[in-house]
Amino acid sequence: MALLRSWIDSANTAETPFPLNNLPYGVFSVGEGDLRCGVAIGDRIVDVTGLEAAGVLRADPEADVLDAPAWNDFMELGPAAWARFRAGLTALLAEDAGEAARDAVTTYSVPLARATLHLPFRISEYTDFYAGKHHATNVGTMFRGPENALPPNWLSIPIGYNGRASSVVVSGTPVVRPWGQVKAPDAELPRFAPSARFDFELELGAVVGVPSEGMVSVAQADAMIFGYVLLNDWSARDIQAWEYQPLGPFQAKATATTISPWIVPAAALAPFRRPTPARERDLLPYLREPGPMLYDIALEVALAPDGGGETVIARTNYGEMYYSSAQQLCHHATSGCPMRVGDLLGSGTISGPEKGARGSMLELSWGGKEPVALTGGGERRFLEDGDTVTLRGHAQGAGYRIGFGECTGQLLPAREMPGWAKGETE
Amino acid sequence: MALLRSWIDSANTAETPFPLNNLPYGVFSVGEGDLRCGVAIGDRIVDVTGLEAAGVLRADPEADVLDAPAWNDFMELGPAAWARFRAGLTALLAEDAGEAARDAVTTYSVPLARATLHLPFRISEYTDFYAGKHHATNVGTMFRGPENALPPNWLSIPIGYNGRASSVVVSGTPVVRPWGQVKAPDAELPRFAPSARFDFELELGAVVGVPSEGMVSVAQADAMIFGYVLLNDWSARDIQAWEYQPLGPFQAKATATTISPWIVPAAALAPFRRPTPARERDLLPYLREPGPMLYDIALEVALAPDGGGETVIARTNYGEMYYSSAQQLCHHATSGCPMRVGDLLGSGTISGPEKGARGSMLELSWGGKEPVALTGGGERRFLEDGDTVTLRGHAQGAGYRIGFGECTGQLLPAREMPGWAKGETE
Repeated sequence: MALLRSWIDSANTAETPFPLNNLPYGVFSVGEGDLRCGVAIGDRIVDVTGLEAAGVLRADPEADVLDAPAWNDFMELGPAAWARFRAGLTALLAEDAGEAARDAVTTYSVPLARATLHLPFRISEYTDFYAGKHHATNVGTMFRGPENALPPNWLSIPIGYNGRASSVVVSGTPVVRPWGQVKAPDAELPRFAPSARFDFELELGAVVGVPSEGMVSVAQADAMIFGYVLLNDWSARDIQAWEYQPLGPFQAKATATTISPWIVPAAALAPFRRPTPARERDLLPYLREPGPMLYDIALEVALAPDGGGETVIARTNYGEMYYSSAQQLCHHATSGCPMRVGDLLGSGTISGPEKGARGSMLELSWGGKEPVALTGGGERRFLEDGDTVTLRGHAQGAGYRIGFGECTGQLLPAREMPGWAKGETE
Repeated sequence: MALLRSWIDSANTAETPFPLNNLPYGVFSVGEGDLRCGVAIGDRIVDVTGLEAAGVLRADPEADVLDAPAWNDFMELGPAAWARFRAGLTALLAEDAGEAARDAVTTYSVPLARATLHLPFRISEYTDFYAGKHHATNVGTMFRGPENALPPNWLSIPIGYNGRASSVVVSGTPVVRPWGQVKAPDAELPRFAPSARFDFELELGAVVGVPSEGMVSVAQADAMIFGYVLLNDWSARDIQAWEYQPLGPFQAKATATTISPWIVPAAALAPFRRPTPARERDLLPYLREPGPMLYDIALEVALAPDGGGETVIARTNYGEMYYSSAQQLCHHATSGCPMRVGDLLGSGTISGPEKGARGSMLELSWGGKEPVALTGGGERRFLEDGDTVTLRGHAQGAGYRIGFGECTGQLLPAREMPGWAKGETE
């Protein structure tokens, strides 16, 4: 597929993350104005809430679905409506659009640089997976040795656990270093302290746009996915180490989960489909994919100390995963678990086979033992106060890119301990 | 505290679960009518949506909060408004209420027996805990032996994991036996099959009515709890055994979670407060309770085979728990995890020290090894198709009871396996 040309020149470059081929869904505001649904194109945002109200482009002829500052009502309309809307918007923005279309879009659009971006959808529930083989092998090797790196179920199940939807924030939101129970390996008892091994995890998030009750096949699950975001699953490794047996991570993963501000439509990624790797153990039939369901998305992680320049500390690709989001969603529904519009599924940490392709500090510094050097001097075992972590990603087409926008967040110091947590009377 | 007398005679008996002292919050409909918010009193439901619309009893003078069929908007008003509303409703229903009050309530109430009950609130997120020491000891003994029964963190942390809010259903909803990946102990590989070890778990659920950002003390957490429900955390033990390492239960707990139709106000339970047991290990200061925060609530579990009479298979008390819901909520927020109105916290399985006080089949049948005899003949290791499990609970006052209504559900056979799950082409 080639670049689709737009009459908005900034959308026609090889570098823009937002050519006409993309049309990602976001929520924005300008100054003190209302939050509105928007679609990015080049260096502008099309105010689709405005286009809907003006009757220029309506997703649903009967009801406004873009008047709430979230894409959930639009998602509820289903895949046929998504495709119609995308075709309508493409026509308004394409090189051959008429004057009326150009006038309407000019009226209802703003420069991206002037906009504040918000969470693009209401997160119904958030599930995180553990579906990258390199990541699971690295972590397992550190904790259990290379012979027992992968748990016995790993090659059969896309392992997942429920996370906390309330913790999901949009790119740019600062993250405060959490307090929690931690226990030193040589200590008998835990203490309550700020996490000293705070980390990021490079992931892709799939946004469920079609609800289900009962089992769904992998093919059905794939069609239920509205789009994808970049996702940073911030993780307190020391809290996790003490809390996670026997029922899994809880507070270690609940401080924050940052997502990129744009949902890239599954339709925009379709030309970049890529198969999951060869299986070392046959999957049970229900999990087998009828076609390639990963995507070739180049990913990178950059770390910048407070006031300093950034170092790219990892480069990898979403195509490294062992299970696709469609397989994860299929497995998620096996028990009859109802899936809902606005559910967010984290892919699991995306690491590649090389050392420079590891998607977490835990792996990059091998549990804190091998510090990572920063370009401007200094090194990191885990994150330090003031560090900014930025995830970036794009699919590379012939002369164009499908980008996600940055997924970034700065780590702020832990808050002061409240008196009651020291045992003082309230 | 003594029985508060009402002019509705059925509320003045020693047996009714719904005396004037209770006033639990529910959602009901009659015939094909709309869903409305209601409060149970004796054998009637007061239609508080109707009272609000008529201006007889308004929780918020400015806005309708009981017009959506859920108590969330009411909860958003906060504890002072809850207390005012409760006082207002008590005045309308008390023995000395005037004729106008009686007329209004008579107009806006229906017989309980005619009503269909629905989920009383929109569940924002659902968290389940593992905070009963007898339960954790029983389960740990079965899996790891008596010496290692409790995990090392158990006496320090109210262990919890995130569950699936979309799976929560109201009492009376049938539950379909789930499919899932299971692996026999002597098998090398898993297979996809209906769960053969499907179980219930007797729990209490706390409903969060006040949101938080950042840490909250145990006292603050206690004041954030709007009320309590009975909760059955249906569990597929064989799915759980294969999936839960290393990230905890997932599909094993996602089929359904049944709650009783009435949220019993924390205010109604206040006279029944009871301290948590003596600590075997000092808690960290942040988790210490400023006063008694469990409740003396007698609980029972009844099992009835399809078409057969019921056997009470367990009797226990919520006062057996090691951690209170307030402690759980405090711990839940330590990492900065935002808590929201409508969050539901499952207490964890409530088992007592005796064999007949165990809150799950797993414990009652000791992993399937000691079948439980049923009154009408037959026995159970785990649940069979057609079985109905009913949880009941009440706090016993002097001449009155605070009841929850039944929390019941029938297990239906697994659905037929879809062709695609057998590997057939879709």
